[in-house]
Amino acid sequence: MVGGGPGSFIGKIHTKSAQLDSQIELVCGAFDVDPANSKLQGKEYYLDPSRAYDTFQEMISKEKDLPEGRRMDFLSITTPNHVHFEPARLALENGFHVVSDKPLTNNTEDARKLVRLVEETGLVFAVTHAYTGYPMVKEAKEIIRSGRLGKIRKVVSEYPQGWLSTPLENTGHMQASWRLDPAMSGKSNCMGDIGTHALNLCEYITGLKVTQVCADISIMVEGRKLDDDGNVLVRFDNAARGIIYASQISAGEENGLKIRVYGEKGGLEWIQVEPNTLIVKWLDKPIEHIRPGNPWCSDLAKYNTRFPAGHPEGLIEAFGNIYRNVATCIQHRLEGKEPPAEALDFPTVYDGLRGMQFIDSVIASAESENKWTKFLE
Amino acid sequence: MVGGGPGSFIGKIHTKSAQLDSQIELVCGAFDVDPANSKLQGKEYYLDPSRAYDTFQEMISKEKDLPEGRRMDFLSITTPNHVHFEPARLALENGFHVVSDKPLTNNTEDARKLVRLVEETGLVFAVTHAYTGYPMVKEAKEIIRSGRLGKIRKVVSEYPQGWLSTPLENTGHMQASWRLDPAMSGKSNCMGDIGTHALNLCEYITGLKVTQVCADISIMVEGRKLDDDGNVLVRFDNAARGIIYASQISAGEENGLKIRVYGEKGGLEWIQVEPNTLIVKWLDKPIEHIRPGNPWCSDLAKYNTRFPAGHPEGLIEAFGNIYRNVATCIQHRLEGKEPPAEALDFPTVYDGLRGMQFIDSVIASAESENKWTKFLE
Amino acid sequence: MVGGGPGSFIGKIHTKSAQLDSQIELVCGAFDVDPANSKLQGKEYYLDPSRAYDTFQEMISKEKDLPEGRRMDFLSITTPNHVHFEPARLALENGFHVVSDKPLTNNTEDARKLVRLVEETGLVFAVTHAYTGYPMVKEAKEIIRSGRLGKIRKVVSEYPQGWLSTPLENTGHMQASWRLDPAMSGKSNCMGDIGTHALNLCEYITGLKVTQVCADISIMVEGRKLDDDGNVLVRFDNAARGIIYASQISAGEENGLKIRVYGEKGGLEWIQVEPNTLIVKWLDKPIEHIRPGNPWCSDLAKYNTRFPAGHPEGLIEAFGNIYRNVATCIQHRLEGKEPPAEALDFPTVYDGLRGMQFIDSVIASAESENKWTKFLE
Amino acid sequence: MVGGGPGSFIGKIHTKSAQLDSQIELVCGAFDVDPANSKLQGKEYYLDPSRAYDTFQEMISKEKDLPEGRRMDFLSITTPNHVHFEPARLALENGFHVVSDKPLTNNTEDARKLVRLVEETGLVFAVTHAYTGYPMVKEAKEIIRSGRLGKIRKVVSEYPQGWLSTPLENTGHMQASWRLDPAMSGKSNCMGDIGTHALNLCEYITGLKVTQVCADISIMVEGRKLDDDGNVLVRFDNAARGIIYASQISAGEENGLKIRVYGEKGGLEWIQVEPNTLIVKWLDKPIEHIRPGNPWCSDLAKYNTRFPAGHPEGLIEAFGNIYRNVATCIQHRLEGKEPPAEALDFPTVYDGLRGMQFIDSVIASAESENKWTKFLE
Repeated sequence: MVGGGPGSFIGKIHTKSAQLDSQIELVCGAFDVDPANSKLQGKEYYLDPSRAYDTFQEMISKEKDLPEGRRMDFLSITTPNHVHFEPARLALENGFHVVSDKPLTNNTEDARKLVRLVEETGLVFAVTHAYTGYPMVKEAKEIIRSGRLGKIRKVVSEYPQGWLSTPLENTGHMQASWRLDPAMSGKSNCMGDIGTHALNLCEYITGLKVTQVCADISIMVEGRKLDDDGNVLVRFDNAARGIIYASQISAGEENGLKIRVYGEKGGLEWIQVEPNTLIVKWLDKPIEHIRPGNPWCSDLAKYNTRFPAGHPEGLIEAFGNIYRNVATCIQHRLEGKEPPAEALDFPTVYDGLRGMQFIDSVIASAESENKWTKFLE
Repeated sequence: MVGGGPGSFIGKIHTKSAQLDSQIELVCGAFDVDPANSKLQGKEYYLDPSRAYDTFQEMISKEKDLPEGRRMDFLSITTPNHVHFEPARLALENGFHVVSDKPLTNNTEDARKLVRLVEETGLVFAVTHAYTGYPMVKEAKEIIRSGRLGKIRKVVSEYPQGWLSTPLENTGHMQASWRLDPAMSGKSNCMGDIGTHALNLCEYITGLKVTQVCADISIMVEGRKLDDDGNVLVRFDNAARGIIYASQISAGEENGLKIRVYGEKGGLEWIQVEPNTLIVKWLDKPIEHIRPGNPWCSDLAKYNTRFPAGHPEGLIEAFGNIYRNVATCIQHRLEGKEPPAEALDFPTVYDGLRGMQFIDSVIASAESENKWTKFLE
Repeated sequence: MVGGGPGSFIGKIHTKSAQLDSQIELVCGAFDVDPANSKLQGKEYYLDPSRAYDTFQEMISKEKDLPEGRRMDFLSITTPNHVHFEPARLALENGFHVVSDKPLTNNTEDARKLVRLVEETGLVFAVTHAYTGYPMVKEAKEIIRSGRLGKIRKVVSEYPQGWLSTPLENTGHMQASWRLDPAMSGKSNCMGDIGTHALNLCEYITGLKVTQVCADISIMVEGRKLDDDGNVLVRFDNAARGIIYASQISAGEENGLKIRVYGEKGGLEWIQVEPNTLIVKWLDKPIEHIRPGNPWCSDLAKYNTRFPAGHPEGLIEAFGNIYRNVATCIQHRLEGKEPPAEALDFPTVYDGLRGMQFIDSVIASAESENKWTKFLE
Repeated sequence: MVGGGPGSFIGKIHTKSAQLDSQIELVCGAFDVDPANSKLQGKEYYLDPSRAYDTFQEMISKEKDLPEGRRMDFLSITTPNHVHFEPARLALENGFHVVSDKPLTNNTEDARKLVRLVEETGLVFAVTHAYTGYPMVKEAKEIIRSGRLGKIRKVVSEYPQGWLSTPLENTGHMQASWRLDPAMSGKSNCMGDIGTHALNLCEYITGLKVTQVCADISIMVEGRKLDDDGNVLVRFDNAARGIIYASQISAGEENGLKIRVYGEKGGLEWIQVEPNTLIVKWLDKPIEHIRPGNPWCSDLAKYNTRFPAGHPEGLIEAFGNIYRNVATCIQHRLEGKEPPAEALDFPTVYDGLRGMQFIDSVIASAESENKWTKFLE
């Protein structure tokens, strides 16, 4: 694991999620830019001290030298955005599978390099757009794929948060500081951090691709160098239209990722803060509330649900589904077997690239006076 | 009353709402283009047959000739869009106050004429943007006016319906037929019918004015001449930004008018299908659910609430608030008194004009390749 | 109308509800024990002053002498409990139909007398257990009647309010004062006022009858002479079991009448504060949310719904359904016709009697050390 | 770990929860009555094969012989009810701490023995009433403890499930079969399995003790030997009154544990299927929705929350809080330190005993014709 040192938020989600299903064990880490902190964190995880490394370079190099069966099986990257590309590249070049946080890299060029490396090496590469790991998101995908909603006409994918309503970055807050610093975050804060989730969610569920965007991107809190709010009109490759918006100045919102999709015969709605209900609305029958763990759920939803109905699963479990599916794929490869189709359903380097292209597209659109900007593929 | 003949939907809402508070009595009507139907409807309302008129022209002329105290006090207009202007004009010119359904007219020029007539005559003119009649909408307005949310930064006002997901207009459905006919509906269906409500709601609650729009307006069901869906980016006069969207092809949605407003210190959320809860979210304390009939509600909300907490009021009551407030204003005028400030809080001819301008603006924007179109005042 | 003078809460609900559908007009009243107040109230309703009577006795006598077609058609009783019986008796004896508030009388003996009078005269007698007037309550009844839930096994009917959490009756509060005074309220406050609604709701929806009760009735606020809370185990005539509870010291609750019914194949849930949703849960398919105004609703629900889906109807509309159905029945009788079956679906004197028996039964049980007390029929 | 073999539901919850926070590692197990299955399960957990034992007796004996630091630190018991007591006793007698599933034992006498053993040995003993591990349950406890609701007057604690609506036990369903078999389950099914949770939840949150019960316990599905539904009136040691009910024939309900508590100044409500919201209702201000991860939460809630607001935590995380708190206590003891007060907040052998006494009490009450039965302490 790279990153996840003391004070890390996303690092903790990764470790808890990865260990959830007793398939994955944390064996080594370069947890922090400060080697002392890395050692400290390793101790907290009861690691062999020799495997709490000073740098990710050292880790990849030394782990590679360990005998098969003892060395790490894959690398998790949980660092700030500007330290995604290098460890990913190095891991791939040294034969390690990768699970990387999003956005994939700090610029699209690097993202393309990773795509090429994955294609050349054939290694597993997951990007933790974890919200698509929820069983009810998978159920939504299956409902649309089955054609029950008919042709999709409209999509509204939104991601309001309120945590950057005040200039938190001036108070020493770690996440706020690096996220609003272009050197670490890249060319976008809000659209990159959570706008990409909103894109990923809607493309995952509908199977459609955004082809054009019209973006209004803002800095609402004075003094910032990067966006904290953005509204985007979108058009899809099947002629559907919609809205994607992301905001970190929607005061009072926690983490309100929500999607609504409407087809010719019905619509559906899912919201992340109450993730265990999928609302499906029909033209010809009552509204349905679908919940995980029930016999009428799709195979894909069932594959990603751990318990019978009524035992709420949360973000760690959704995140854990990515890890479990990655582990299942790696395990099957080690055994020379084809993994089950359901296990292959996790976000990959291609989703990561698409996120980078989304950032480029909406920033370009925001700077343009033309209404429509082609999605930059 | 003009309109509201057999089969009318909105006419029934008007009569039920107007009579709710025992201040208004239906005394005459020209209920239908077919005089026989008008007579029939008059009978159903137990009217004096001589006051169920053949045409609104006849009604206005004959009622004017009745002695004061016997003639109608004001005219309600509940006809399709293309028959809003003429009866309104005639009523004003003959000294009658008016309550008109929206949109105000079929084009902005006519709307301006009505504004001038109202200004010249000093008569009361209400436009039934009834959703702002709900007590919790008024509460939202008061919370923002008080500054408790701080400066407003973002507004999302949306109005999804699903009833035009199929080509209902080809089945003889009365509302669908005239609404999708440019000759009766004007230059827009969806944005005119419900987009104007979404605009009115957000401008009413925030006290802000939209200054620029960027619209993507669609015809999703083949063969239609008017829009059935539209997404609009908006900018406000205080630099806030937002989204207004309206849709009649959001399959499975009933009448989902909803607004979210975010300021520097908190946000609020209201949805029409559950109108008795206003959700307020804060940066520094738990989410609040405010409900009508409670002592902590604002005076304005209380003025528009009939019963103690827990006795749900619906659309008729909200609609009835406009009628009651209009009646109170007329009554006070008759008695030479100033009406209470709360009674003056209803949508007027200026709101009606603004709705017409919104239609013009979004249609112009939809036809433009430029990102931003100035709101056409 | 008897009662409904200045300051009355329930009186206002009656007049608004009655006039809602343009079938009923308020023509006379004895609105208050104080004749001056009665005159005042009559003026507020724009009544002919000669028909704002000093007493209900005078009203019934004088109205009877008016020619047919001019005199009142039926009497509404909206007074405190101890003035329900006399006006009802007198009205029936003089040939007037009656709509009475609940509880029917102040004691069971009087209730039986009214039943006999109704049976002898054949007059229409409605009791305003208005919550069964909601369309989604009627839908619940039809779902159970159709057998879709299978045999009913369990019922939980609850009615928590919080308005008597403090000794409000000592502050001059009108409703609190008479409701907690045994002379005006009878032998029970909470169980009589709202416990009877909870009983009526569950017997109406399920078609079952309570046969045994085991009650724990309390006075939680010191100094009261009548109950402000009560929990009751119940058994039904089909072997189903359940709970009925009512409370006025459930601090923070507004008017939370709620019912859940479970059968062999599914369950349903309805709550009064959000009355436009009926939740139905199944063993073999997803949860359904049924809302009024949709084509899949039962005929009975449709008959009691005024508008298309998404236009919320509240308590006035539910209450108005009783009045409209009564008016339809009276109208049909006047015309010598059989009213439609749907119009006959309103609570009658028999429901009123059952409420009185419920009060007797739970008070007897509360005073007994035996677990079960037979429902006193 | 005892139990948790192939097909186990609760075993999986235990392992996932225990490993969540990287403090606990599964080192050995006697997973199944069939030693072959035990080996199989051990392999699935990547255990040293020598530590996948044939019986819990063998495990306890052999682990005890391992050197300190290598042997297991505590024993988790996840077997059916009739195999709770023996492993618990043996573990305590051999110096191992215990985490046991509930009910504590199969009869109260055994439960008392465990209490005595815990008192004699001073070992840590947790019982997994996991629902009290949710942060919002802890918040509810703290609100009441702080006195903000005033003296508690009424409690309604309910636990409806629907999974035993049909005779599932005749279909080979593992959980249904043993739970409905008196030899394995003890004298109660429904009240023992989930009624005890409802009791634990209400006593935990309120700090009150039930002193009297009046129970109506049913077998609704023909042919069963143990209860599948029960309704209980209860009285508390501070004169509060309330209702506890549990049901497994509430068709369509998933796992609907819910509690409402009302005091003099307000009430609160929490429901397990949406565990991340605590609703607090006040006499003097709007309803509040409190959610975990926010700065205004109590220290106790914060101690048991892993992530910032808006990242839903589910049952595994609640369950994990017990394990983490137990591990923290054991760790502190090993280091000779006092654990933090928050870590001591988990259900112990005394809660387990109370659950057993509740079963005895309600079964005795159900068989009695007297209204009230003293809670059997």
